[in-house]
Amino acid sequence: MAQDGHPTFGIGMVGYSFMGAAHSQGWRTAPRFFDLPLAPQMRVLAGRNAAAVTTAAHKLGWDDVETDWRRLVARDDVDLVDICTPGDTHAEIAIAALEAGKHVLCEKPLANTVAEAELMVAAAEAAAERGVLSTVGFTYRRVPAVQLARRLVVDGRIGTIRHVRAQYLQDWIADEDVPLSWRLDKSKAGSGALGDIGAHIIDLAQFVTGESITGVSGILETFVDERPVATGFSGLSGTAGTEKGPVTVDDAAVFLARLSGGGLGVFEATRFAYGRKNAIRLEINGSRGSVAFDFEDMNVLHFFDASDDPQVAGFRRIVVTEPQHAYIASWWPAGHGLGYEHAFTHQVVDLVRDVAAGTQPTPSFADGLAVQRILQAVERSAASDSDWQQI
Amino acid sequence: MAQDGHPTFGIGMVGYSFMGAAHSQGWRTAPRFFDLPLAPQMRVLAGRNAAAVTTAAHKLGWDDVETDWRRLVARDDVDLVDICTPGDTHAEIAIAALEAGKHVLCEKPLANTVAEAELMVAAAEAAAERGVLSTVGFTYRRVPAVQLARRLVVDGRIGTIRHVRAQYLQDWIADEDVPLSWRLDKSKAGSGALGDIGAHIIDLAQFVTGESITGVSGILETFVDERPVATGFSGLSGTAGTEKGPVTVDDAAVFLARLSGGGLGVFEATRFAYGRKNAIRLEINGSRGSVAFDFEDMNVLHFFDASDDPQVAGFRRIVVTEPQHAYIASWWPAGHGLGYEHAFTHQVVDLVRDVAAGTQPTPSFADGLAVQRILQAVERSAASDSDWQQI
Amino acid sequence: MAQDGHPTFGIGMVGYSFMGAAHSQGWRTAPRFFDLPLAPQMRVLAGRNAAAVTTAAHKLGWDDVETDWRRLVARDDVDLVDICTPGDTHAEIAIAALEAGKHVLCEKPLANTVAEAELMVAAAEAAAERGVLSTVGFTYRRVPAVQLARRLVVDGRIGTIRHVRAQYLQDWIADEDVPLSWRLDKSKAGSGALGDIGAHIIDLAQFVTGESITGVSGILETFVDERPVATGFSGLSGTAGTEKGPVTVDDAAVFLARLSGGGLGVFEATRFAYGRKNAIRLEINGSRGSVAFDFEDMNVLHFFDASDDPQVAGFRRIVVTEPQHAYIASWWPAGHGLGYEHAFTHQVVDLVRDVAAGTQPTPSFADGLAVQRILQAVERSAASDSDWQQI
Amino acid sequence: MAQDGHPTFGIGMVGYSFMGAAHSQGWRTAPRFFDLPLAPQMRVLAGRNAAAVTTAAHKLGWDDVETDWRRLVARDDVDLVDICTPGDTHAEIAIAALEAGKHVLCEKPLANTVAEAELMVAAAEAAAERGVLSTVGFTYRRVPAVQLARRLVVDGRIGTIRHVRAQYLQDWIADEDVPLSWRLDKSKAGSGALGDIGAHIIDLAQFVTGESITGVSGILETFVDERPVATGFSGLSGTAGTEKGPVTVDDAAVFLARLSGGGLGVFEATRFAYGRKNAIRLEINGSRGSVAFDFEDMNVLHFFDASDDPQVAGFRRIVVTEPQHAYIASWWPAGHGLGYEHAFTHQVVDLVRDVAAGTQPTPSFADGLAVQRILQAVERSAASDSDWQQI
Repeated sequence: MAQDGHPTFGIGMVGYSFMGAAHSQGWRTAPRFFDLPLAPQMRVLAGRNAAAVTTAAHKLGWDDVETDWRRLVARDDVDLVDICTPGDTHAEIAIAALEAGKHVLCEKPLANTVAEAELMVAAAEAAAERGVLSTVGFTYRRVPAVQLARRLVVDGRIGTIRHVRAQYLQDWIADEDVPLSWRLDKSKAGSGALGDIGAHIIDLAQFVTGESITGVSGILETFVDERPVATGFSGLSGTAGTEKGPVTVDDAAVFLARLSGGGLGVFEATRFAYGRKNAIRLEINGSRGSVAFDFEDMNVLHFFDASDDPQVAGFRRIVVTEPQHAYIASWWPAGHGLGYEHAFTHQVVDLVRDVAAGTQPTPSFADGLAVQRILQAVERSAASDSDWQQI
Repeated sequence: MAQDGHPTFGIGMVGYSFMGAAHSQGWRTAPRFFDLPLAPQMRVLAGRNAAAVTTAAHKLGWDDVETDWRRLVARDDVDLVDICTPGDTHAEIAIAALEAGKHVLCEKPLANTVAEAELMVAAAEAAAERGVLSTVGFTYRRVPAVQLARRLVVDGRIGTIRHVRAQYLQDWIADEDVPLSWRLDKSKAGSGALGDIGAHIIDLAQFVTGESITGVSGILETFVDERPVATGFSGLSGTAGTEKGPVTVDDAAVFLARLSGGGLGVFEATRFAYGRKNAIRLEINGSRGSVAFDFEDMNVLHFFDASDDPQVAGFRRIVVTEPQHAYIASWWPAGHGLGYEHAFTHQVVDLVRDVAAGTQPTPSFADGLAVQRILQAVERSAASDSDWQQI
Repeated sequence: MAQDGHPTFGIGMVGYSFMGAAHSQGWRTAPRFFDLPLAPQMRVLAGRNAAAVTTAAHKLGWDDVETDWRRLVARDDVDLVDICTPGDTHAEIAIAALEAGKHVLCEKPLANTVAEAELMVAAAEAAAERGVLSTVGFTYRRVPAVQLARRLVVDGRIGTIRHVRAQYLQDWIADEDVPLSWRLDKSKAGSGALGDIGAHIIDLAQFVTGESITGVSGILETFVDERPVATGFSGLSGTAGTEKGPVTVDDAAVFLARLSGGGLGVFEATRFAYGRKNAIRLEINGSRGSVAFDFEDMNVLHFFDASDDPQVAGFRRIVVTEPQHAYIASWWPAGHGLGYEHAFTHQVVDLVRDVAAGTQPTPSFADGLAVQRILQAVERSAASDSDWQQI
Repeated sequence: MAQDGHPTFGIGMVGYSFMGAAHSQGWRTAPRFFDLPLAPQMRVLAGRNAAAVTTAAHKLGWDDVETDWRRLVARDDVDLVDICTPGDTHAEIAIAALEAGKHVLCEKPLANTVAEAELMVAAAEAAAERGVLSTVGFTYRRVPAVQLARRLVVDGRIGTIRHVRAQYLQDWIADEDVPLSWRLDKSKAGSGALGDIGAHIIDLAQFVTGESITGVSGILETFVDERPVATGFSGLSGTAGTEKGPVTVDDAAVFLARLSGGGLGVFEATRFAYGRKNAIRLEINGSRGSVAFDFEDMNVLHFFDASDDPQVAGFRRIVVTEPQHAYIASWWPAGHGLGYEHAFTHQVVDLVRDVAAGTQPTPSFADGLAVQRILQAVERSAASDSDWQQI
């Protein structure tokens, strides 16, 4: 029992870079604004480098550390394992955790391959029968404006969906002199723009529409196939700028899609759209209206209601900060917008409530696998002259 | 009778610079898109310089010229006199034309002083009894988005008006090296930003709200009180940049206002807002909703309806190009927006219809006088330490 | 010789509905604002229905009428034939006019088939050797903001082009109850959204980038395949709403493309995007910057310059109304924006100057054919499961 | 010494509603993202109701509680007192804390009257001589986009300031049926829109320009002077909707201002702008450029640089999320925007660093008094027919 009378809920997290910081903020903040049925305890952080993980644990607010994730998984005081490592390690950790009876929150992408993802789904389904739950971290679902878009679709305000227009535009490697990093190495990252950011818009499109992508035709492109080797902190900086190494992932991915309800999808993910920093854009046109979202203005949803009197019809710029909107009643007054990491707090809130209730959290590992299959189909299409790939 | 069976309607125009070009385009275009009960004939253009006025007449499409406006006013083939000269000549020409039985369209401001404007109103009222009509050219009223704003107020969609927020922002003399011109000379222009552009937002505010400004408190400012003398085409360019002359009008005007319905007004007119080119902005907040307009996006009106379900309430970005919107059915399909000079065509349409029907056009000279009185009150307030001036 | 000393230039126009009105406004307005080396004379309008064409000629300002376009083509007082009829008649009229020694302005699409377009190009090339010139009416090229985008590409401000993102979104038949019209009949219109509006974004993308589309993969979709038969004015309105007929063209088209410079293109044309009225959107991302345009805000171009100091870098909202911008010096002061039909005036200006100079106008019939080949490739890809089509 | 080797820094907070929650999030979050020279310890929360303050302390993360703020001030383990109570209690608590040798963070407004504020400034200055520091919580200064605006002014990118246009627009009581609350009671709140939100835009305008407001002319208005009495949880709900009580504060405030550098200011604060939720807008026009900010899009600053080539000049939409921007390097990658409460974290960061360095934090109590004097001058002007009030 925690101080507030709710049962404690021990968390162990593996990995502590960008996603680790975001997840930590979620665990730390959720109970401060939301009423949770369990009291999360940030018990242990795992990482291979003892000094680094100790520093991170202190910084991020974890009570203890492990240098082997297997020990973390084995701890009695850990009820949930939060996986924030690169994609190539997800399957092994997640399966071990589930088999050890730990609930699992796994960062996206679920895995680097469909095969791994399938094993994870099998493990998740087996675990679920024992009451052990799992979810994958497509956090953008939990932005209030995205929740509102989903709500409007569910309520029939958009009607039959005819178009999905989804873009994820960044520009952080548009400059050819940006050096190599593990994200540009296929052996580690698995994929480039497609898997890293394309995965998000695939999940968002399926989540908001409530439909599945049934086929794709796509192109992958690597605009800059060689980049300077980063020289880091090793004293070798004398060679900086001269040595180059290969980029082995895609810089950009574009694909057409069919949706299960008959609509058309157009998707684009790129790290080469100068001036667009984190522009996650989703527009859906249906038989009764439209919604449009851009993460660069994340507290706003645009909604066109075709039943409005034509004289005063127009996209409504809804500032999604009213108490009626998802999650907002626990935060601030209207107009006091949220930021990027709030979605990680919402992820914790939803997950803790599901665990307490014993209900399957969403998105499930199966949802993560569905995204993975679409990524694979895009890769196959791209490799075969944009041939159509049924999913 | 014109070719189409409608009676002809002879137009004589005085002046042919910026406003002359805009008015000419209105006369030329109106019958091509709208059904008019009278067929306007661009009969004669007046200007003092024979060569220049002849060139202008040919360019702008006028059949004949006069070098003395008095002769234009006297012509039998002129039914309406269109006055596009600087403000200091309006009263004399307009009164002469009205007394000669000619309808009058007079550019804004109605006059450079309240006294002149009062004489013009008296002449207009006397003429009206003889069926001779007059109007003043506050053309921005005839932008479809502005018409829609007015319609929403009339229909009660905004409710009781609490706030009017009006700005006219330009930047064409923000650079201190822009040379002197007649517009910066009080003896010719009468006023600076206040009379030139402030007059427009005063008229718009009163038009859209349907209320009167009842009192003001204001400040006038001349930021750059000395500028290079323009050397023009005279061969004296050797002195350019060294000689300077005084700016005798205001560069900017700001004032607070009370409206007759109890609302508060905040007005700002300036030629020193770098980056704002012709930003005529009007926002009105009422007890049932709000409207917002910016001429930099002139085909759009923003409307907030407080009766909308809070979950989906937001400013609607109405693209005012539907056939239901004022004037639009005669133009193009939805989304094919209009430009600046279309309002001059609409002015001709409304005026010709009013003349044919024998009804008073709006805005009347009395409306122009009302604006003039507010301008005068702002000047008086500014001259007396922002003292409140009741109107 | 016209009154101003310039040689006259006799125009004959065929067709007088939407495009006829827009072209007439162009012919009428161009000499009023621009200095032209030839004086266009609106001599004759052709249409099959004598009464209707006479009414139209009077309304639109044409001196005379013909009920057979062949007689118009044969007239000595016609120097240029302006073709505003549906696409299935373009080839016959244009070829006849060119062979008769008349310059030709032909509305887009150049033809309904590649075969016809090829014949037209052959005729145009033969005529050009005799000094007889031709052009196709992709007018959106002549919007000043589009011209500026092109200028920035030419000047190297965008760098190597990596992404083209082009959409033409409308909603005028998103409502399933909108009745059938000739535009939804393949035998007359040739194509639906693809040929009608998709053609514009293909031309714009190629024009602004200066590159060619070299291959495509696409999907066409007809969301509503049956609609009410319009009952028109025939007294048969009793059957309205019950009888239905087939829609034989596409409602929407989406396709991926490769550009000759190695970039990726994503194109989407639809009449089913509720709330989007005439949203012609073009965004281009290159190695040095980006540009973005949306016709719903047609006087604005957004430009991101990657060489700006990162602290103050951002998309610049350029109000394209400065005298430095294309065509603007002949119009209004800064911030007094243009509208839809101004591009038709610009088309006349450019064409008359080219004819006077004896230089080939752009876009040429060959440019029109290039668009047609891409349209055909998209159709073929759509008919074969989105297979890649090299062009 | 805290775990990380930094000296601990004990915090005691008084008050725990809206501002208390925001301040707590700041104290909790700052050390997780920023390197701080002192380790804040959330030691004690004070409130009069023992049960409520205990619940709040647990929720917000405070170690202990006191039911009398005097005991909190007296505690040895408290180094800084954070005052989040209503304005009428600020002076007493702050002065007591300073005299007890505690640093003070006091929420805005500094006090409800100039007289109280003057006493506070005197206490702060006396304390400063003993190394005891104080600051007032105008947190909007710490939004990165606002910091960038200030930076551009300091760097001379805006030039001499000619216009300040500041608005704080809300709509939470635009509905006449919103019941009375303490914020509408002058005896408790001291002021309405003017003091509550007008204070923010006064401080922002002075902070960003680096200038002082030297005189004002204003109007205060109460649109709805009677409202339903809130029936709360007392079982008296049967009378709800019938009983009414007076509103004793202003609903809206508008005023003109002069700045010390010669510029003009226009200010407007209202709770009656339907559709505007928390629109804190600041636009500044200078002799070299302009900046514009709107809190409804808080991660963005618009900047116009008059030295840009006119062909490509335009307001730059700067997404203020680059590592070069204030505070950002400690947060997320570019484009991953911040939210409302991040400014409270920044406030903690700046304050802790100043305390550790022994430097005066900004804004000081003297800055808070300066705002208070302007509020008083606006009230005096409003009470005397908008007479000019020199400050």
